[in-house]
Amino acid sequence: MSAPVRRIDVDILPALARGCSVLGAGGGGDTYTGLLASRQAIERYGPVAVADLDDLPDDGMIMPCGYIGAPTVSIEKLGCGSEGERLREGLEQVTGRPVVAVMAAEIGGANGLQPIGWAARMGLPVTDADGMGRAFPEVPQVTMEIAGIPPAPQLMTDERGNTLVLHAVDGAWSERLARAVAVECGGRASSAEYTMSVAQARTATVRGSVTLAARIGAAVAEADDPLGALVAAIDARVLLTGKVTDVERRVTGGFVRGSARIEGLGDCSGRELVLEIQNENLVAVEAGEVRAMVPDIITVLDSETAHAVHTERLRYGQRVSVVAFPCDPIWRTPRGLALAGPRAFGYDFDYVPVESL
Amino acid sequence: MSAPVRRIDVDILPALARGCSVLGAGGGGDTYTGLLASRQAIERYGPVAVADLDDLPDDGMIMPCGYIGAPTVSIEKLGCGSEGERLREGLEQVTGRPVVAVMAAEIGGANGLQPIGWAARMGLPVTDADGMGRAFPEVPQVTMEIAGIPPAPQLMTDERGNTLVLHAVDGAWSERLARAVAVECGGRASSAEYTMSVAQARTATVRGSVTLAARIGAAVAEADDPLGALVAAIDARVLLTGKVTDVERRVTGGFVRGSARIEGLGDCSGRELVLEIQNENLVAVEAGEVRAMVPDIITVLDSETAHAVHTERLRYGQRVSVVAFPCDPIWRTPRGLALAGPRAFGYDFDYVPVESL
Repeated sequence: MSAPVRRIDVDILPALARGCSVLGAGGGGDTYTGLLASRQAIERYGPVAVADLDDLPDDGMIMPCGYIGAPTVSIEKLGCGSEGERLREGLEQVTGRPVVAVMAAEIGGANGLQPIGWAARMGLPVTDADGMGRAFPEVPQVTMEIAGIPPAPQLMTDERGNTLVLHAVDGAWSERLARAVAVECGGRASSAEYTMSVAQARTATVRGSVTLAARIGAAVAEADDPLGALVAAIDARVLLTGKVTDVERRVTGGFVRGSARIEGLGDCSGRELVLEIQNENLVAVEAGEVRAMVPDIITVLDSETAHAVHTERLRYGQRVSVVAFPCDPIWRTPRGLALAGPRAFGYDFDYVPVESL
Repeated sequence: MSAPVRRIDVDILPALARGCSVLGAGGGGDTYTGLLASRQAIERYGPVAVADLDDLPDDGMIMPCGYIGAPTVSIEKLGCGSEGERLREGLEQVTGRPVVAVMAAEIGGANGLQPIGWAARMGLPVTDADGMGRAFPEVPQVTMEIAGIPPAPQLMTDERGNTLVLHAVDGAWSERLARAVAVECGGRASSAEYTMSVAQARTATVRGSVTLAARIGAAVAEADDPLGALVAAIDARVLLTGKVTDVERRVTGGFVRGSARIEGLGDCSGRELVLEIQNENLVAVEAGEVRAMVPDIITVLDSETAHAVHTERLRYGQRVSVVAFPCDPIWRTPRGLALAGPRAFGYDFDYVPVESL
């Protein structure tokens, strides 16, 4: 295990972006634009400190934040940069307390990077922690919800300067109302919710996820066999190596939904894997058998470079390897599975860990 | 002209409801449920004072409020009663100022009555003024928008207790985002927006509209010939008397949209009038000629009782008289027409006053 990351500068960003992408399970937003945005902010405002929650004051306020909406939209509809400041201002106004650190609501995809750019602009640290240890499509699918922290007050803003403070009665209503707002904003908005104290965050988050993402990215970057190195770094299993033969994808209700088919090549010849998608890869099915499922992480990798291919970038002909690896243990608890297990996504089967399939 | 109404008790409510219904141009929500809700509140909490804006302190804060959504939904989806208190609490918290009076954002339909029930519960007066002098479908179609008052901060809540504070960049965004929230809340939510001082309200509202509604209702209630009395009371012209032969109506995007056909009977035999609807009756067309149009008020009346028939209550076979009468003069100014004239609703023709058609 490498040393914890304590500072994010432009040099570490590419590795971090790769790691976020792998942890994104196909979602969380395309890391290319997220990388550009955070690099621009760091170049202009300086590097960002990464804080261990143990080193922050107990009663300091943590602001989990990120984008909400359909990743497909995020490729073209960029932010204006000042969203983080508006979220923070609104939150401090509503709560009367200062934000001591910014946290990625989800480490997966662009949402693992975007808070870094915002933090750079504000001169705030980011926490070496997040609310998922991966990416999930819905607002309440965070470890804070499992810990009983309320989503309200939820701040939202868009690139035009519209802002709102939402006090939803629970996580499910937070998801419904915030999603409707994100759709109306053009398919994507920025949001901060599940605000908590540092003391709460210590047990209500996935710790060390920035360090983990950077470590994954570094392992691949330095390897002669990127795919092999990645599989080793995250203890993944390769479900199939082959070619994307069909992608069905639509933006509906503020999500990207659809499926992708991957036909086996080489050793995998004659086999076919189907991925079902809601922003993220939810389940991987082969010949009627589920090979991996939420909340475990299913990621599509470019077979040559081991770069993660986000769901909105999948297209016919890509040579890919589909890998699956275990989620953070919190998601395998009864409350975690109720929130983000297969049944939470409408599947009529129980969760089985990827190691047992 | 009768004396101004200065107190609303249960005795005056039925006349007030009738008048609001007539002024609603078919919209603003069904006054039956609005009447029941305000009666219940007055019976429990006592009568409501009606304040002339000249008698309130210059710097007092006026809270315009009402329901937002599709009237069709309002027939079945009732409020919980405490929405007004939540709107007020939120508004006072955000602005740091006390609300001195509640105002109907629109006097038309149930939205002319609902604020009375809320005021009764809070022990606040309602103003003898509103933001339309009728009902319009969209949030920024109010006289406050013409006066340059911003819609933000906009408070919203639903019967479950979800609340939000919206700071939209302008009236159009207020409409978009608030409508999306109302749809997600089940097709109807409560809202307060275009908050202003008493001094501003004196020139930014339609004055005397509670008194006008009560006067209209009283004129009809006491008449042997209700229709004739009503037509005289509001200086209306009868466009057609006949039978509803077709209603096309759908709830879409948080509005009721559609059309109704009325076939002439008696003196009007052989003629047909078509009403086009977006919550309210927007235009009345006969044989390809527009007979009346927004912002003038087009109301369908029961031919026998002269009760206004809201758009969501229109049905085959009803014997009705369609009347049209002039809107408040503010809507005939260039800014008023830009906001609520025929072109604002997508029609490709200029406004002509109903008196000239």
